[in-house]
Amino acid sequence: MYQPPRGTRDFLPEEMYKRNWVLDRIKEVFGVYGFEPLGTPAFENWELLKMKSGEDVINQIYYFKDKSDRELGLRFDLTTSLARVVATHRELQMPFKRYAMGTVWRYENPSEKRFREFWQADADTIGVSDAIADAEVLSAAVDCLKLMGFEGFVIKLNDRRILEAFILQTGTEKGLVLEAIRSVDKLLKIGRDGVINELSKLSIQPELAGKLLNILSRKGAPIDILSQVEKELSGSPEGLKGCEALKYVIEYAASFDYAEYLVVELSLARGLDYYTGPVFEILAKGYEDYGSIAGGGRYDEIINLFGGETTPATGISFGIERLVQLLEMKGGFIGKELGVAILVAPISDKVKGEAIRIAQELRTAGFSTILDLLGRRFSKQLEYANKKHVRKVVIVGEREIAEGCVTIRDMMTGGQITVNRVKLLEHIRSQVS
Amino acid sequence: MYQPPRGTRDFLPEEMYKRNWVLDRIKEVFGVYGFEPLGTPAFENWELLKMKSGEDVINQIYYFKDKSDRELGLRFDLTTSLARVVATHRELQMPFKRYAMGTVWRYENPSEKRFREFWQADADTIGVSDAIADAEVLSAAVDCLKLMGFEGFVIKLNDRRILEAFILQTGTEKGLVLEAIRSVDKLLKIGRDGVINELSKLSIQPELAGKLLNILSRKGAPIDILSQVEKELSGSPEGLKGCEALKYVIEYAASFDYAEYLVVELSLARGLDYYTGPVFEILAKGYEDYGSIAGGGRYDEIINLFGGETTPATGISFGIERLVQLLEMKGGFIGKELGVAILVAPISDKVKGEAIRIAQELRTAGFSTILDLLGRRFSKQLEYANKKHVRKVVIVGEREIAEGCVTIRDMMTGGQITVNRVKLLEHIRSQVS
Repeated sequence: MYQPPRGTRDFLPEEMYKRNWVLDRIKEVFGVYGFEPLGTPAFENWELLKMKSGEDVINQIYYFKDKSDRELGLRFDLTTSLARVVATHRELQMPFKRYAMGTVWRYENPSEKRFREFWQADADTIGVSDAIADAEVLSAAVDCLKLMGFEGFVIKLNDRRILEAFILQTGTEKGLVLEAIRSVDKLLKIGRDGVINELSKLSIQPELAGKLLNILSRKGAPIDILSQVEKELSGSPEGLKGCEALKYVIEYAASFDYAEYLVVELSLARGLDYYTGPVFEILAKGYEDYGSIAGGGRYDEIINLFGGETTPATGISFGIERLVQLLEMKGGFIGKELGVAILVAPISDKVKGEAIRIAQELRTAGFSTILDLLGRRFSKQLEYANKKHVRKVVIVGEREIAEGCVTIRDMMTGGQITVNRVKLLEHIRSQVS
Repeated sequence: MYQPPRGTRDFLPEEMYKRNWVLDRIKEVFGVYGFEPLGTPAFENWELLKMKSGEDVINQIYYFKDKSDRELGLRFDLTTSLARVVATHRELQMPFKRYAMGTVWRYENPSEKRFREFWQADADTIGVSDAIADAEVLSAAVDCLKLMGFEGFVIKLNDRRILEAFILQTGTEKGLVLEAIRSVDKLLKIGRDGVINELSKLSIQPELAGKLLNILSRKGAPIDILSQVEKELSGSPEGLKGCEALKYVIEYAASFDYAEYLVVELSLARGLDYYTGPVFEILAKGYEDYGSIAGGGRYDEIINLFGGETTPATGISFGIERLVQLLEMKGGFIGKELGVAILVAPISDKVKGEAIRIAQELRTAGFSTILDLLGRRFSKQLEYANKKHVRKVVIVGEREIAEGCVTIRDMMTGGQITVNRVKLLEHIRSQVS
């Protein structure tokens, strides 16, 4: 009872600082790209949640009833609510670019890496069919990652229509294509033989399945791969549309200045069934084994599902937990000075008032400052300052105050310097960022 | 089904900008005060939620079971989870100052002002008995409000022990004191006669009840009121402790520099049963009828309830919805320029690449910039810019680009100026904040 519910966690300050730092960077970049904030409820009507999702996801929704027996569910992503808002708010100006950051819940088997409550940060552009929107959400995500200190990327790119066209070429029935896509999507997880085995259950002959996987595993320069695909799919208008979209993404990416990171990966499907065009995933160079840190794609058929007009849409999503873990691993938080900067330490009760005034002065100047609240001995205050990783301690003693001075102790070096009371702020400004 | 669930709302960008602005200000001030972020789950074990709350609140909790039949409930405040964390994480350094901002849920009858999903922002100090902690959380809240542009305040102050002592003086049984407090707390809502009527049901004679209310309605300088209360409660050690605590709060407030706003209001109880010492509410001067915009108090008995050692605790909480409404009412968002600043408008497809590069340049420099994504005619782009309240439009034409120029249109004045391409950023910097 005194633990957080199974699958959830508490984030103590040390972890929260990192999380908030990551969220702030994303918010900053989404903001400069003109994505606008949208707030939606943590729970939605059960019927709505069911409409968008495949069976797998439905089984993961936290379902409940309110006191009037309305059937509700905790949101499992941020896209469903976005699509609902767009479908119902006809007054929204198109294109509508929105970002959202928040908690989502999925009842999965918890593990060390997988939780039932986790954070997503999404940017989506609604109302644009052209691949410039896909290229732009990707650019925003790349810029978020750059701002966090990532330097190289692998951006995997595919189009669902290309994948579908190749699967149809094997003679697969239309009704089984989605299932085949889901199998192909597991290539990295279950391996080539595993996929061939699954595809055989969908009546795709092992030989044809092998050929399919050869095509889908093709490596090379994006434009070369797409030229070849265009020839192979010349009979499939949908497949060709997919090729065209990707060529545009690549062209726009050159203007946005991240084209060098693009690779075409024809097996990429991104699990969820609702994608209709380009799909993409971003991996950090040097950390490819870690999996994708952002992903998304085009979903032109969801908003009409919720009663709106058919409306093109594309977006990208960050999983915050994974980002924080990866940044921790690569030392991305080292030197970030995320915690409290200064402790003001009154030496006796008589100077408490003056200590408060000094703390207020530092706070007004923007320095994160704590004040001894327990009237502890100085050595105890230093101990606390140490444990809190405070950088400077401002020592307020009776004699110093009488002389118009304070002493500043640097907690890294242990060195102390006594400065004129009126010079305190100037001194701190020159030393603490 | 396509509407947000009853009692919840969507926040479109225009509203979200304001909300985020308010939350950012609070986060900033809580940060400089050295309150540290703590993250806890949106739901907690049902048993835990029940332990802290009175019957009224229990009936408002969204209750549900997970797929393993664990009984859970959506959090109704941020304090319960904080108390759980403190009770179980013995490694936390005391004092522990934490802030939290997030959604809470209460199943109340929804109205225009009251929703079932709303945001709170709390700052709490754990581990300090001395009134300096109460004075500091109040100071943090006042500084948040000042940063939002509020200028005068009424800070109502009381101590639960004083209120209890006066009620005991009427001869009320100890077991009925809490209920009497709840009645007195309704003074503003149900009036003097209403309270006297409720107290008579607790066997407090109307005459005594009237006297009690006379005392509790006393107005005057804080120190004068407390001197008189000290005399009247000379036989109640607990009541005297309450007086002493308030005198310290007032003394510290002078050092924190907000003592001028303090008033002692002896009837103030702040509903929730768990307060044990000082309680307080902040109202904005000139908007007193609007009710309190922040409130809190000391709760020294909750953490041991959750299996921890007895640990003193005090805190303050903002209701974000009310703050945003009040700021809207007083015009606090006027001139804040919260939305997108710039639209980059390519005149033809040929200059799209250049338009993208210009947008990227502006974004890198920190300006919130959108780009025409639909290849619309210029007049349509201007219409969109207008509706989005964009301040500047950067017009990218073929001829201008050939000549190394761009044109900047000011959307307020309609004036246009053509500048050298390399001077664009400089020009925008001088005009857009």
